[in-house]
Amino acid sequence: MPELRKDPVIGRWVIISTERGKRPSDFEEIKEEKKGGFCPFCYGNEDKTPPEIFAIRPDGSPPNKPGWTLRVVPNKYPALRIEGQLNRQGEGIYDKMNGVGAHEVIIETPDHDKDLADLEVSAIRDVFWVYRERVLDLKKDIRLKYAMIFKNHGASAGASLEHTHSQLIATPILPKRVTEEIDGARTYFNYKERCIFCDIIRQEVKDAVRLVYEEEFFVAIEPYAARFPFETWILPKQHMSHYEHISDELLQHLAVTMKEVLARINLALNRPPYNFVIHTAPMQEGPMEHYHWHIEFMPKLTRIAGFEWGTGFYINPTSPEDAAEYLRNINL
Amino acid sequence: MPELRKDPVIGRWVIISTERGKRPSDFEEIKEEKKGGFCPFCYGNEDKTPPEIFAIRPDGSPPNKPGWTLRVVPNKYPALRIEGQLNRQGEGIYDKMNGVGAHEVIIETPDHDKDLADLEVSAIRDVFWVYRERVLDLKKDIRLKYAMIFKNHGASAGASLEHTHSQLIATPILPKRVTEEIDGARTYFNYKERCIFCDIIRQEVKDAVRLVYEEEFFVAIEPYAARFPFETWILPKQHMSHYEHISDELLQHLAVTMKEVLARINLALNRPPYNFVIHTAPMQEGPMEHYHWHIEFMPKLTRIAGFEWGTGFYINPTSPEDAAEYLRNINL
Repeated sequence: MPELRKDPVIGRWVIISTERGKRPSDFEEIKEEKKGGFCPFCYGNEDKTPPEIFAIRPDGSPPNKPGWTLRVVPNKYPALRIEGQLNRQGEGIYDKMNGVGAHEVIIETPDHDKDLADLEVSAIRDVFWVYRERVLDLKKDIRLKYAMIFKNHGASAGASLEHTHSQLIATPILPKRVTEEIDGARTYFNYKERCIFCDIIRQEVKDAVRLVYEEEFFVAIEPYAARFPFETWILPKQHMSHYEHISDELLQHLAVTMKEVLARINLALNRPPYNFVIHTAPMQEGPMEHYHWHIEFMPKLTRIAGFEWGTGFYINPTSPEDAAEYLRNINL
Repeated sequence: MPELRKDPVIGRWVIISTERGKRPSDFEEIKEEKKGGFCPFCYGNEDKTPPEIFAIRPDGSPPNKPGWTLRVVPNKYPALRIEGQLNRQGEGIYDKMNGVGAHEVIIETPDHDKDLADLEVSAIRDVFWVYRERVLDLKKDIRLKYAMIFKNHGASAGASLEHTHSQLIATPILPKRVTEEIDGARTYFNYKERCIFCDIIRQEVKDAVRLVYEEEFFVAIEPYAARFPFETWILPKQHMSHYEHISDELLQHLAVTMKEVLARINLALNRPPYNFVIHTAPMQEGPMEHYHWHIEFMPKLTRIAGFEWGTGFYINPTSPEDAAEYLRNINL
């Protein structure tokens, strides 16, 4: 059973994933993702993943067989497991609990050679739709407090398989970064009685210097205090704290916006590796006036070194204004 | 002038280092450090760095000439600059200030082919000694609040030059990670009237399951909630909040401990890339009963992916107990 442990000084939880237990020799080199070769996410290999949780099958094909256009499966090497009790306990001055949670993989397309950016808007919409459906399902389990949806694209961004996919990890605790964001937004709301993200959107649309793309329901911006070159946030213009409250209409617009951002990033930066993460409100809490879900998209262009690890303090060599201007001026 | 910008939601400062300004084409590939070729840190190339701030010259040789055994120079591409006023100001809902601070490079040896681990204990002690001396000098400038001392070793840990060196960045603000650690330690102290790091040391020495190395004045442990495989902390057993208060006697013991840790890590993991960072109390504050300086050492073995970025929540595939046992049992 994986274990959740809390740093006693700063309160950060980590997963000690003993079932993935690695000996020193496993680290001799950081392995690159394999190009070509066997892929468990391709048609015909459905039995090489754990049985599917969900799939879109326009042809009515049976589960765990070819015919799907999108497939959700449990992670074969899960960081957290759905079975068991949390069993919170102390260990001297330390705190731990069992690694209870969910770890799912969303296989975005059967086509091994396509990235998310290459999919039709309707297929990207399906990906965002399934994120919503999986969260709505998982939140029925009240042990689970937070659903983290993220995508690692490219080996240097942490993808261990080349076939395009994203992941959902549902945790029994609120990750520290999430708590900080919600607390910061609440402090602002208590003072101003306005959502800070709504204020950010208003200022960014008005100033238009960090704006990358704007449509009816979404904006894409370079954040003012960007940690990374070409870090890009996608925010719904309407205030909404929980991603899973997104309407079908907005899913369509989100897919259009994501395709637009990916196209611009890919042209500007020659299809870089990247990560994105959906920041959303805790699953078991009601709508919040002070929090606003959004996507943080981070191309993997620079190395994070000692200074950044030690301080949580980033050095960004590209101003968000320069990055935004560049991305805005891309001819698609 | 570089700019310090604050994330309005979570209060994290970033440096927008416009003087290193990068265009998209600069990121086409993540460049590896060059092996061989020209090295500005070798004898005879002293004029290829900015003029030295300090050097150890046993032969009495003149500044900026060969003959030194350790040399401190300003970073040629500084993230922060010592000249100018902070000029704190708003920009709509955002906050910024000028990037005032110091960014120095400590060239640990003239020998291009040696790493820190290969140096004699006396030379490692000189490195730790010069860290102390530089902080004592920089803290006279009361604009500077924090001194971050760190080392990036190996290209994938962020080192842009192969010749062994460490860095010091002095910042006019307290980095978020530091504030969190000090606040967490203060909360514990207010409750227990004991330093949490002193309690950690007591428990780790007693349990001995996460202990890597112990000598008279220092311990090296795998932290209970380690973020990374083989993450190792070095702590002075005596309570001391500020690194720069270290005595000459303790410097010698710290050098012995660091050499021991590096030797074990290098044998266990085949000389991995790594980062270390000294966590210490803010320069302009007096001794603190609740905080305890220490070194966090992180071999670079796993990739940090979307989940970790998005949540500040780490998945560690090697338990600290396994790592400690392995490192303890290395035959040096």
